[in-house]
Amino acid sequence: MSPLAPTADHAWLRPDAPALGRQILAVDASGPLVETVGAEVADLTTWHGGRLAPTDEATVVLTTADRARGVLAAAGLGEPDRAVADLGPEAFAVVRGHGRLAVVGGSDRGLLYGFHHMRRLQDPLGHGSDGTEIHAPTHPVRMLDHWDNVAVHPVMGQVERGYADGSLFYHDGRLRPNLDRVRHYARLLASVGINRVSLNNVNVHRLEATLLTERLDDVVRLAEVFRPQGVAVYLSVNFSSPMTLGGLPTADPADEAVRSWWASAVRRIYDAIPDFGGFVVKADSEGQPGPFGYGRTHADGANMLARALAPHGGEVFWRAFVYNHRQDWRDRSTDRARAAYDHFTPLDGQFDDNVVLQVKHGPMDFQVREPVSPVIGAMPRTRLALELQVTQEYTGQQRHVCYLAPMWSQVLHFPFGEDDAPTVSDVASGRATAPSGGIVAVSNVGADEHWTGHPFAQANLYALGRLAWDPQLPAESILDEWLAATFADESVRDAARSIMTGSWETYEQYTAPLGVGFMVRPGHHYGPDVDGYEYTPWGTYHFADRDGVGVDRTRATGTGYAGQYPEPWASRFELSETTPDELLLFFHHVPYTHRLHSGKTVIQHIYDTHFAGVERVEEMLATWERVREQAPRPLADRVRERLEEQRRSAIEWRDQVNTYFFRKSGIPDNRGRTIY
Amino acid sequence: MSPLAPTADHAWLRPDAPALGRQILAVDASGPLVETVGAEVADLTTWHGGRLAPTDEATVVLTTADRARGVLAAAGLGEPDRAVADLGPEAFAVVRGHGRLAVVGGSDRGLLYGFHHMRRLQDPLGHGSDGTEIHAPTHPVRMLDHWDNVAVHPVMGQVERGYADGSLFYHDGRLRPNLDRVRHYARLLASVGINRVSLNNVNVHRLEATLLTERLDDVVRLAEVFRPQGVAVYLSVNFSSPMTLGGLPTADPADEAVRSWWASAVRRIYDAIPDFGGFVVKADSEGQPGPFGYGRTHADGANMLARALAPHGGEVFWRAFVYNHRQDWRDRSTDRARAAYDHFTPLDGQFDDNVVLQVKHGPMDFQVREPVSPVIGAMPRTRLALELQVTQEYTGQQRHVCYLAPMWSQVLHFPFGEDDAPTVSDVASGRATAPSGGIVAVSNVGADEHWTGHPFAQANLYALGRLAWDPQLPAESILDEWLAATFADESVRDAARSIMTGSWETYEQYTAPLGVGFMVRPGHHYGPDVDGYEYTPWGTYHFADRDGVGVDRTRATGTGYAGQYPEPWASRFELSETTPDELLLFFHHVPYTHRLHSGKTVIQHIYDTHFAGVERVEEMLATWERVREQAPRPLADRVRERLEEQRRSAIEWRDQVNTYFFRKSGIPDNRGRTIY
Repeated sequence: MSPLAPTADHAWLRPDAPALGRQILAVDASGPLVETVGAEVADLTTWHGGRLAPTDEATVVLTTADRARGVLAAAGLGEPDRAVADLGPEAFAVVRGHGRLAVVGGSDRGLLYGFHHMRRLQDPLGHGSDGTEIHAPTHPVRMLDHWDNVAVHPVMGQVERGYADGSLFYHDGRLRPNLDRVRHYARLLASVGINRVSLNNVNVHRLEATLLTERLDDVVRLAEVFRPQGVAVYLSVNFSSPMTLGGLPTADPADEAVRSWWASAVRRIYDAIPDFGGFVVKADSEGQPGPFGYGRTHADGANMLARALAPHGGEVFWRAFVYNHRQDWRDRSTDRARAAYDHFTPLDGQFDDNVVLQVKHGPMDFQVREPVSPVIGAMPRTRLALELQVTQEYTGQQRHVCYLAPMWSQVLHFPFGEDDAPTVSDVASGRATAPSGGIVAVSNVGADEHWTGHPFAQANLYALGRLAWDPQLPAESILDEWLAATFADESVRDAARSIMTGSWETYEQYTAPLGVGFMVRPGHHYGPDVDGYEYTPWGTYHFADRDGVGVDRTRATGTGYAGQYPEPWASRFELSETTPDELLLFFHHVPYTHRLHSGKTVIQHIYDTHFAGVERVEEMLATWERVREQAPRPLADRVRERLEEQRRSAIEWRDQVNTYFFRKSGIPDNRGRTIY
Repeated sequence: MSPLAPTADHAWLRPDAPALGRQILAVDASGPLVETVGAEVADLTTWHGGRLAPTDEATVVLTTADRARGVLAAAGLGEPDRAVADLGPEAFAVVRGHGRLAVVGGSDRGLLYGFHHMRRLQDPLGHGSDGTEIHAPTHPVRMLDHWDNVAVHPVMGQVERGYADGSLFYHDGRLRPNLDRVRHYARLLASVGINRVSLNNVNVHRLEATLLTERLDDVVRLAEVFRPQGVAVYLSVNFSSPMTLGGLPTADPADEAVRSWWASAVRRIYDAIPDFGGFVVKADSEGQPGPFGYGRTHADGANMLARALAPHGGEVFWRAFVYNHRQDWRDRSTDRARAAYDHFTPLDGQFDDNVVLQVKHGPMDFQVREPVSPVIGAMPRTRLALELQVTQEYTGQQRHVCYLAPMWSQVLHFPFGEDDAPTVSDVASGRATAPSGGIVAVSNVGADEHWTGHPFAQANLYALGRLAWDPQLPAESILDEWLAATFADESVRDAARSIMTGSWETYEQYTAPLGVGFMVRPGHHYGPDVDGYEYTPWGTYHFADRDGVGVDRTRATGTGYAGQYPEPWASRFELSETTPDELLLFFHHVPYTHRLHSGKTVIQHIYDTHFAGVERVEEMLATWERVREQAPRPLADRVRERLEEQRRSAIEWRDQVNTYFFRKSGIPDNRGRTIY
């Protein structure tokens, strides 16, 4: 099944792992993806000594709901439970009895997900008790956005914010002729339930815009690779395309010629790709064109595209990442954190049904620590998708270990109100409000032989899919699943677990204290530069002076951002005493001697966490050294090389941040450690 | 003569200007450049109503020393003075009498310089008294280095540190087919006595390296354009060329195959360009390869190339810009300012006669204020060239007015000892020590219609040539010469003079106080970023903390750099009391409350100069507004647009620097002005 060499890095679809391959299997199902399931099963049994057999001889039977009655009977599993008849197309049931089991997909797609569920289990038959168990995804949209350019961009490269070598799809101005690795990538996505992928960078440059027109054949070829894995393809489009590609004098969404240009462009796509997903749009953001240029609202812009797509069943993912990136640092009244809320909440209810508003998890931009974006709880009549960043732009760029699932879990469970209020996940899943969006995330995968630069970063992609399917899964269980699927050796798994557990907090420790962000080198965003963004137009300031640090976002004396939250958050964030320590500097400007709930002063907290973070990285490296010989090569060496860079970089972070705040505050470390 | 349209910007060779063109002229001289002089004369008289005539009828006679006796007699100017017989080839004499005059070139080249001297005069016949006046260049080497790339470099662009559009020579990977503007550029150079030009960036990338081999035809074509103006062409070469171009396994200068590779490469060049000048080399610097890679000294490396060039009369310009650009900011013992001295002075006397060591004027890198490099006074047995930067990398990038001649004058007159000790110019000219080098400067010219981005930046190119010819010329006289040659309207000249006079000090005021440098945005170096280089590997720190600022470079407690100077400088720079205010922070770390010789505290000086600098820019803009209608278009608008950007940028500098130091020091401005 896998087009990759057996010695290649298969990520978590390690061919030697699945216990399922030792079973006697039968596939009796309907739908186009059944072929995919069949091929997976055939491949598994070849590797592991199981075999295919007629339904009545099999220990594991794979079927779809439309055939469940007959197949279950033949397999000796009796009548299907009523729930089996009600399965959604992406759901599946596991029916157990008499030492046998059946996987029943709500459709062929649900069956594919059910197959991968079984594939993951160490003991498929032993797992669970007799009866019927239903699995259904929480979020209907489980999507990955690729920020891949077709041509190498002079500043941003082949993949914008990509840290895993080039693009899987494109190389040097064209689609790769050999798409075998994309084929395996599509399998990886299906195996964790991803059902949508966008094929190009949201900053749509000139050449990339033509994917919509002249280069549509490239999209057709990619769609052919993703289709057998149940993954629909999307394109990022440039709002000005009617002008740049169509030669029209305007891209005004109210203009009839513009609408009709989009309608025919969309028609041509669906002629070639009947299951095309739709568009992703970054408009009026960081220099991209958009409806503001024509005095129109973002609803006008999004709906115009939505109406071109609607007749074909397509949808628009419209990004809410709109802010003034030409801010004056001298102007303390403007607050970038407020921008998405101020721009979009007045438009609630104005978006068409096939528009999904895609909102970053925090109000800024994927920092290691941010409060949850208040927009997500404030637009009940809009389909909202939560946007996460699997690619580690601000979390170590896949040179540092940073297992992000704990952060995402925290975001997904954040309630917009008291504890029983709807959470982020409730909004994105449609449980809280009628229209449902889902989870969209920026991919961290590239042409790198280990897919993600740092091999441990594969776990983030895995976890993203698993949490999008089921946000109740604990981050540590997901890590265990991933470890079991990825590493054969138990000591290696134990070491990797120990390295990855808490790695998000570790990264936070040696980089950004107490909710202050953006202390990174401008442009590429790697490594420390405390003042790097302090006097720029990007709206990302910390306001450190000799007395204190932090941004006053209170209603009383600051930018008022705290007031964008519902209670009790608005009141909690308003006061430094009720703001959680880890977000203190996001909401308040405080003296270095301010005492945290932890009992430490802010300045001592900065010193302590930076020293502790480096110590933790030293331990990571020592842990890996102990098991490195047991780990597969070249992965083992890659991990070591990355950990060494992480150590170097963490020390650099520690020393720069500590020196910066020591030079500012003049307050020495109370333990007398070296600050330069 | 000029290949440019009459409406084009001719810079200081404005066709309507020269009074010389109204004279009756005769050319009776020998040598290839006489044709150039003849064409200039013919062109002038056509424009201005003068005419050519036989020698005995002419009011102005142009000749060369070898014919002087006969020609002066025929012109009724009697016997030539004895000095005329001793003229060097680049010198010329002006012989006046009976209301007529003769220009006698030591050779055809001297005649060309003499012609341009006369061209500059408002009243050629009225100027000066009867008798013989000798003009000879002080510095034998008067050279411009182009940092032009043939192909657009992904980071550095078509011209590295170029602020005047693309390259005059190359466009997008190839030599420009039309070289008319290069032809005019060569005239501009000859008119101010420039006699050498290097054709490509000192960072020699892959494609550019082939100018030496496959692309030699491009060099031939450029040499043909520069030759009629007496300008020899040079190439920057990559030390690794024997490997990258020649396929050898090494570039070790001691390797026989390497030496013979260079010898034949050089032979091929001279077969094609018999008057080729030689090589410029940046080796072991900022990532460029060099002799260190083979355990050889810079003398070994330079001499190897020199020996390939010597049989043909070529020379090597070897740059002394060698330092550790991977420094650790935590290491306070390493000092980039020391590097050139530490690397090169031990090699004094080891370089071959046709090697010129090219030393930047300051120990760092072309900051708006630096002390003079101590290397220049410390290598009496080495040919030294002073390297200046006409392109305004750190002085406003030709968006800001910054007339640099006053700075260059100051450098040229710096004495290495008490007041009568040899100056920088004495060293570079060979007056102080036997071997002579000269002046090398990085060009500020590009494909821009005004040549230099900011039209006023033309004056820097002009002044560079004039100072290289005669360092005793006062900067203000050079400015007057340039204004007279460039602008027809007197009110425009007055306005430009007022804007440009003191503009260097103004730029210093609103950017870098008291000798502290590098408070610029990393990479492109435009605009402020006080901490931008503070925690980088580049060795350019200011060490500002809440108590004070500056670098301790004393022998007593600092890096010892002050000790690289001869007395009295070593002692003067050692103590803050005897260090000039403008260099205080270059040599000393002092409290913000330290009192300057001016009576102000350091912090108040920072505030005052930043406010004053912006006020001065406001005046500049107002001054230009008053005369803009009288100035030629589109130049007038270009100047206004640049002045507006200068104002915006100066305000940004003022506010960032003041805010930075206020946040650090906590000391308010004693005049209560706005600090953000």
